[in-house]
Amino acid sequence: MPRRSFWAWGMESDEPTEGQRRELAAGLSAKYGVPVDVPPVPASSDLDLRRPRIAVPGPLAEICTTDTHDRAVHTYGRSFRDRIRAFNLQFPNPPDVVAYPRDDGDLVSLLDLCSSQGYCAIPFGGGSSVVGGVEPPDGYNGIVSIDLSRLDRVLEIDDVSRAARIQAGVYGPALEEQLRPHGFTLRHFPQSFEFSTLGGWIATRSGGHYATNQTHIDDFVESVRMITPQGVWESRRLPGSGAGPSPDRMVLGSEGTLGVITEAWMRVQARPRFRASAAVRFSSFAAGGEAVRQIVQTKVWPANCRLLDPGEAQDALGYDGTRAILVLGFESAELPQGEQMRQVIEIARDCGGAVGEDEIRIIDGTGEEARRPEAVGAWRNAFIGAPYQRNISMGMGVVAETLETSITWERWPSMDEAVRGALQDALDRVCGGGRVTCRFTHVYPDGPAPYFTFEAMGRPGAELAMHEEIKRAASDAVMAAGGTITHHHAVGRVHRPWYDQQRPDPFAAGLRAAKSAVDPNWVLNPGILVDR
Amino acid sequence: MPRRSFWAWGMESDEPTEGQRRELAAGLSAKYGVPVDVPPVPASSDLDLRRPRIAVPGPLAEICTTDTHDRAVHTYGRSFRDRIRAFNLQFPNPPDVVAYPRDDGDLVSLLDLCSSQGYCAIPFGGGSSVVGGVEPPDGYNGIVSIDLSRLDRVLEIDDVSRAARIQAGVYGPALEEQLRPHGFTLRHFPQSFEFSTLGGWIATRSGGHYATNQTHIDDFVESVRMITPQGVWESRRLPGSGAGPSPDRMVLGSEGTLGVITEAWMRVQARPRFRASAAVRFSSFAAGGEAVRQIVQTKVWPANCRLLDPGEAQDALGYDGTRAILVLGFESAELPQGEQMRQVIEIARDCGGAVGEDEIRIIDGTGEEARRPEAVGAWRNAFIGAPYQRNISMGMGVVAETLETSITWERWPSMDEAVRGALQDALDRVCGGGRVTCRFTHVYPDGPAPYFTFEAMGRPGAELAMHEEIKRAASDAVMAAGGTITHHHAVGRVHRPWYDQQRPDPFAAGLRAAKSAVDPNWVLNPGILVDR
Repeated sequence: MPRRSFWAWGMESDEPTEGQRRELAAGLSAKYGVPVDVPPVPASSDLDLRRPRIAVPGPLAEICTTDTHDRAVHTYGRSFRDRIRAFNLQFPNPPDVVAYPRDDGDLVSLLDLCSSQGYCAIPFGGGSSVVGGVEPPDGYNGIVSIDLSRLDRVLEIDDVSRAARIQAGVYGPALEEQLRPHGFTLRHFPQSFEFSTLGGWIATRSGGHYATNQTHIDDFVESVRMITPQGVWESRRLPGSGAGPSPDRMVLGSEGTLGVITEAWMRVQARPRFRASAAVRFSSFAAGGEAVRQIVQTKVWPANCRLLDPGEAQDALGYDGTRAILVLGFESAELPQGEQMRQVIEIARDCGGAVGEDEIRIIDGTGEEARRPEAVGAWRNAFIGAPYQRNISMGMGVVAETLETSITWERWPSMDEAVRGALQDALDRVCGGGRVTCRFTHVYPDGPAPYFTFEAMGRPGAELAMHEEIKRAASDAVMAAGGTITHHHAVGRVHRPWYDQQRPDPFAAGLRAAKSAVDPNWVLNPGILVDR
Repeated sequence: MPRRSFWAWGMESDEPTEGQRRELAAGLSAKYGVPVDVPPVPASSDLDLRRPRIAVPGPLAEICTTDTHDRAVHTYGRSFRDRIRAFNLQFPNPPDVVAYPRDDGDLVSLLDLCSSQGYCAIPFGGGSSVVGGVEPPDGYNGIVSIDLSRLDRVLEIDDVSRAARIQAGVYGPALEEQLRPHGFTLRHFPQSFEFSTLGGWIATRSGGHYATNQTHIDDFVESVRMITPQGVWESRRLPGSGAGPSPDRMVLGSEGTLGVITEAWMRVQARPRFRASAAVRFSSFAAGGEAVRQIVQTKVWPANCRLLDPGEAQDALGYDGTRAILVLGFESAELPQGEQMRQVIEIARDCGGAVGEDEIRIIDGTGEEARRPEAVGAWRNAFIGAPYQRNISMGMGVVAETLETSITWERWPSMDEAVRGALQDALDRVCGGGRVTCRFTHVYPDGPAPYFTFEAMGRPGAELAMHEEIKRAASDAVMAAGGTITHHHAVGRVHRPWYDQQRPDPFAAGLRAAKSAVDPNWVLNPGILVDR
């Protein structure tokens, strides 16, 4: 039975080979001018975890395991700091038990057990969190990780309203497989797609695949069902409603603190047959940004409107490092997209963008699903594949991470300067140098969602502390520039200090009170979002 | 100084003349085959209210009034039941004081006064509620209506990000006047536009003018500032964020229970220069509905996509009562809209819709703002003017109201049948007959927001009870059919029993706890949404 790697992104079979690691080490050594060692990859048999402190009572025993490998997999998400700790076999606070509920009844029993015994319960989707969202807190005498992966089915499809009732524990690929025969797709492709779940996307307000307009998972939730310690929280299937504050919007982003999401009616999409795509070159990131602003403010809503700075364009697409690239795409199941692409190209050119007529691809459906243009397909594969790349350098001293925010257009230039500056300063100070790049992952009429990537060569064994200092500098700069501490990675334990600065205090008081009302024993993911 | 009418929609100068009333009475008499009296219109001097029970302390006295007319105006919203009670001079529970805060300091003092004295505070925007949203509850020894109309300015405009910081008490027309010189519009035109405010729209999740895509006021809120008894609740200006449940989405729909909204950064729109419009005829409401479903599921997002059933088409546009009409419109500040209109017309025709080529209007901007096509302008004027019409028949025995919901497409046909049936049954039973019509005000890929109108001839003096029975039958039918008790009219005191059925119980517990946290003395609009 294939198992997830306890330290790397993906399955055990996705762990890097010795050959891959030696080759990368040589490359890093040349790039950074330092010797790079290739430390041994940890094995499951090296794991030495605290003994499980929980004796699961009879009826629940059949859905629970204390298997060491399984507990290690459920200790962390998959951020840089998670993977480096796991790689170094640092597991001081693993869950005692991993539970795999089959239905609502199992969940109620699990929450009852935790409530009565003072254990904490950590809802676990795909475990792809990069913000410490599934990491147990200290100070509990028992920790139960609740893995939803058995709730993996599309239960019902309404092809008139284009909606589907879907269990929360289904992973991205299995979800798409079940929708495909019906001609539908959720078309929600976060970078974690392969190892994240519908419930996780909802709990963390996943950002989604579209660059503009309705793209957040928030927009596709028609109703949601969540098990709380105080009963079932289930909303009506409604296309829209003005009846009080939205119950669904309180579940969205609740990060496992209010209950365990078990299923949702989701708005699904007909599979695209018409496509249009183009890549436009700009002399600078700022020039491309102005084009993006003008495009998105016309509200033509391209599906893809991804601006890469010169560094990202070089890394991702092999450009020469002097030009920013705007990747544009339109898609539709029903209607040709050529006209909208031409309108957008005209704006891009007016802003100084360069694109040849032969570089504009228009694909009109002929009854079957249109194939993605090659470059766009390559981009998506590279995008989904990126997390695997970070497996290879683990333990070699590389310190690398991504972080995302959003800001209104008029403050974007100063934020870009401030965040890049803070990151570069921190990299210089901590690692003696390093590289910062940026792209827009989503754009709104009132501002972009910039996504920064940094990489540096640190010291093997010191990566965690180095990473923390760099990330802290960036987070402080994002806050000072007026941004959000997270656009689509969620808050978790990592972003909590800045989240506390960002949110309105009375809202925090309200959220804390709401949690106490639905989870009076503070069983669910304590320490996330609010404190008791 | 012009005053608001204490019973009619609009100003005192908008109250109907004797001539108008006699003419309508004759028409109603002919239409319903009964004699129709013209009772005298109540005068401000007829008002006999409970003596004010509050002595406002010195510093607040200058922003407070106990003027009888003013207190009457602030006793009710402007639903049918509000207007008939006011027309009949029934004011058993008026506010004791109407306060007009000038700034945050005044608001803090007012909330402190209410908290310390056990008074209740009713935030009051334009007073256009049709759901009892500004009506004081019984059981309080003091009631303060907090009228925000002095907070009426656009404070700041960010034309790069297309956003404006706007005080919450500004009325629709004054808001548009202040944005117009900058080339912007909020483009949010609820039917109450003339007598409703930004803060009211936010507090009640106003539905807005667009038929599709981003149309709810929710979508245009970039950040919001609210004064609560526990301090200032103010969110960051962000185009998007994934940091926990959205604080703004908890304010949206809070209906004055969590705090008093004082200002918001709103996403504004460039004024349209390109337009396209058409009206398509269908043989039935159902046929038109199928066309609308197909159109909105392609995601071309027409600004207007308003389907009128044969009865509505007859009333509003003078059609012959056999055909449903779909009014389509596209608008843009930057881009020609002809291609999208042609795509949508093709779908409508494929669904059996009839529209001549000469009936499709395409207006391309020539540097100045495009004038609205005449029919569309006429529709909007009739739409904004409709509430005045109901002033004329007040007290003559007419019982009339509108109600709105939303439902997924696959359940829409059965809901249409059930709600129409329940309304017609109730009208027949209560009034011996009456008329029910329906239109779609908003449409979503997963379902429409139907808007029902009923009118019947009841008995003068018994309108309130008759109205209540009919409205209850409709509300029960909406709930049984799976809809929402309100799509954009809010919950208020009128919808509360059905809202309690609709919302998830644990959510209600959370909302109640959140209210207690920010308003520990339950000063703000008690009885709305939740009970203590």
